[in-house]
Amino acid sequence: MAKEKQFVKEITDMNEDFPRWFTDVVIKTELVDYGPVKGTMVIRPYGYAIWENIQTELNRRFKAQGVKNAYFPMFIPESFLKKEAEHVEGFAPEVAVVTHAGGEKLQENLIVRPTSETIICGMFSKWMQSYRDLPIKINQWCNVVRWEKTTRPFLRTSEFLWQEGHTVYATAEEAEKDAQTMLGVYREFAENALAIPVFTGRKSEKEKFAGAVATYGMEAMMLDGKSLQAGTSHYLGQNFAKAFDMKFLDKDGTLKYGYSTSWGVSTRLIGALIMAHGDQRGLVLPPVVAPVQVIIVPIASHKGGVDEKAKELAEKLANAGIRAEVDFREASAGWKFNEWEMKGVPLRIEIGPRDIENNQMFVARRDTHEKNSFTLGDVSAVQELLKDIQSNMLEKSRKLRDEKVRWADNLEEIVKGVDGGFVKAPWCGCRECEDKVKEVASASTRVMAEGSYEGKVCAVCGKPAKTLVYFARAY
Amino acid sequence: MAKEKQFVKEITDMNEDFPRWFTDVVIKTELVDYGPVKGTMVIRPYGYAIWENIQTELNRRFKAQGVKNAYFPMFIPESFLKKEAEHVEGFAPEVAVVTHAGGEKLQENLIVRPTSETIICGMFSKWMQSYRDLPIKINQWCNVVRWEKTTRPFLRTSEFLWQEGHTVYATAEEAEKDAQTMLGVYREFAENALAIPVFTGRKSEKEKFAGAVATYGMEAMMLDGKSLQAGTSHYLGQNFAKAFDMKFLDKDGTLKYGYSTSWGVSTRLIGALIMAHGDQRGLVLPPVVAPVQVIIVPIASHKGGVDEKAKELAEKLANAGIRAEVDFREASAGWKFNEWEMKGVPLRIEIGPRDIENNQMFVARRDTHEKNSFTLGDVSAVQELLKDIQSNMLEKSRKLRDEKVRWADNLEEIVKGVDGGFVKAPWCGCRECEDKVKEVASASTRVMAEGSYEGKVCAVCGKPAKTLVYFARAY
Repeated sequence: MAKEKQFVKEITDMNEDFPRWFTDVVIKTELVDYGPVKGTMVIRPYGYAIWENIQTELNRRFKAQGVKNAYFPMFIPESFLKKEAEHVEGFAPEVAVVTHAGGEKLQENLIVRPTSETIICGMFSKWMQSYRDLPIKINQWCNVVRWEKTTRPFLRTSEFLWQEGHTVYATAEEAEKDAQTMLGVYREFAENALAIPVFTGRKSEKEKFAGAVATYGMEAMMLDGKSLQAGTSHYLGQNFAKAFDMKFLDKDGTLKYGYSTSWGVSTRLIGALIMAHGDQRGLVLPPVVAPVQVIIVPIASHKGGVDEKAKELAEKLANAGIRAEVDFREASAGWKFNEWEMKGVPLRIEIGPRDIENNQMFVARRDTHEKNSFTLGDVSAVQELLKDIQSNMLEKSRKLRDEKVRWADNLEEIVKGVDGGFVKAPWCGCRECEDKVKEVASASTRVMAEGSYEGKVCAVCGKPAKTLVYFARAY
Repeated sequence: MAKEKQFVKEITDMNEDFPRWFTDVVIKTELVDYGPVKGTMVIRPYGYAIWENIQTELNRRFKAQGVKNAYFPMFIPESFLKKEAEHVEGFAPEVAVVTHAGGEKLQENLIVRPTSETIICGMFSKWMQSYRDLPIKINQWCNVVRWEKTTRPFLRTSEFLWQEGHTVYATAEEAEKDAQTMLGVYREFAENALAIPVFTGRKSEKEKFAGAVATYGMEAMMLDGKSLQAGTSHYLGQNFAKAFDMKFLDKDGTLKYGYSTSWGVSTRLIGALIMAHGDQRGLVLPPVVAPVQVIIVPIASHKGGVDEKAKELAEKLANAGIRAEVDFREASAGWKFNEWEMKGVPLRIEIGPRDIENNQMFVARRDTHEKNSFTLGDVSAVQELLKDIQSNMLEKSRKLRDEKVRWADNLEEIVKGVDGGFVKAPWCGCRECEDKVKEVASASTRVMAEGSYEGKVCAVCGKPAKTLVYFARAY
């Protein structure tokens, strides 16, 4: 965590109380507010704009994979949820149930979707008659509901927004490959759009999705060393195909079940952004998803055409595709500097009467706090800086993270290592060892790690290792 | 309705059975499918792409009005809905109710939003402390639920997608002006993006939104002469401000209630597109919102570099911002022509070996069925054609519509006029006359019409007229 002294008074010192720092930041920067129903959140314009940028970035990547957006009903007949045994077991405890509608008691209860495998597979079974109809690759942006006991804005809320991709293929190989491809898409997106380095890999049986054959996860380390599951991709095999009769006539003239996948990321990603990049002053947003990339603050406004020049500059930047705004509010420049720093805007440009005389602008970076003068209206300098901030944030995060990944050969080292970081350790693969680590270190396996485990023994039980794995405390 | 003979066999003749033609078109063009729960719909990729284009067009216009997107929780505490007396009376009969969540009975039932005035006003009251915080102008894209007895895809479904704008101002004048401004935004959007001419104006007391002081509506005439309410904008006065304690400290140091508005359009607009422009062959989509603007069909594929040229052309068009695709499927050219005509793609380009020899491409318009040759790869010719189709569709619709608006001086003429068209008539403004027209002609007042009513008498009761109004049967 950053050692810098706390700057904005209203925000709790992140070194003293990280969870409270998080709450302060999300509320005071107006990313989010609490809804009237327990565990719900209102995503305010500044937060929603981040989500829209995430959507734009992901939609472009999905399209390149041949995935098309669609929309499926939110209400799932209770009987649908029950068709896949593991699935219902996993989700039944946390669903919201509609029992009445239109003034009458319903004949069958409706589940508000916690995820849409059941309803989408029900439709896929209608749409796939022949091998020619495959693959089907669909994505949906929507709200989902999971009734949680303990909630926190963005991280865990009763209702949240997400995207859920659903595909069906003729063969296991293709479907398994899709699950991995989409994990790769998420990884590239996390690194290049969110500037967050991630560990990706297969999840343990204990941690996998209810109804999946295999779940692949993307884990991001937060500044406090805890892990945030930032995205998952599931290979569902024929589990849902069999439950929903997803059959097709193959080239050989026989009816076969398809193989499906699903993969999703949610508004949790906004929580990841905050906790991966923030500092004592508040948010630090990577340019690719920042709602405002450049804030222009006129100094000694109303003097010497400052406002006009500021507006002109904003238009020039906007024409170059940069999200730029001028802060014309009646407030001191110092107050505005603090406010926009707290809001994490990547670049601040100051223009005063003297700058106009000298044909220059003063540019301050949010990430490094570097300040430099440039020729007034030098758009390419701004573009270069934004690019540099984006890559600098990723590198800085990667360095911070890698310093906090420790190797463990035994339980003691695991316990020590998960206190403020991730642990990489050899593991036998059995549930008992996972439960043991949970019990003594409040940590769980996150994803399998790459690297040789041959000749090594499980750090928990000492039996021969079957994999390397990351252990961490998780949000 | 078009007199052309029915072309695609699978689609019902629109002159024989317009409702069935509509259903055939939406299902067979894969815009939509029926969900497993009664009255719900699945918006398939081809339909959802239209919705995404509508979103892009509206977001641009909203942004120009200073409106920002946000997201509010879907669950409304039952007590919230009850705070505005008229509002609850209007919506209570058609809401879906969550009574259980997380395995327990809830202490207070939750309403799945039928519209979000109550929850949004609840948040506004928290965010508006001073006149400096006003106006607040927010829009939300989301799903809403209204439990309807009779449903039809896009037109009336238990769950649908929409946008709902919500604003609050310090004065009545500003709020009233906002309601009218947004009606104007909708009108311009309907005409220029959807190519649908609309009548806009104030709604009667009977037809207004539950909780509004005044509702303004946008009515579009479908090909069968019936009206489709395509958008509404409400001036809510202080009704919700008082119910939700939306107070602010004004410049004069006193606490005052704000004045609010709300305005929305929904996936109904897709229904409007179909029924305003369709023909015997299926959809006819205006280029601005068409998912595919240009479909390229290679003729005698695999010969003489046809596929390569087709791909090259698609890329060239895409680089110019045109949504173009090549149909590489294994099927006859004739089959593809029918399919894409049914799907309403504005332009079809055919390229065969001889076209390549002659450096030309054959271009067919969906709206007029005109066909012409152009130089192969002439992007600006394609752009011009798309523009021409867009304006031609609006003019054609306007002409068709205006022919079907008849003046009525008495009830008999109203009855005759609403059979396949709109009626413009002087009206006394009273509810009894509206009910009478409903009873004898199954028609309702749609919006007030412009024009002089002085010296005229109500076409229903003969008393002095207080306005001109449009009567029509409505979807």
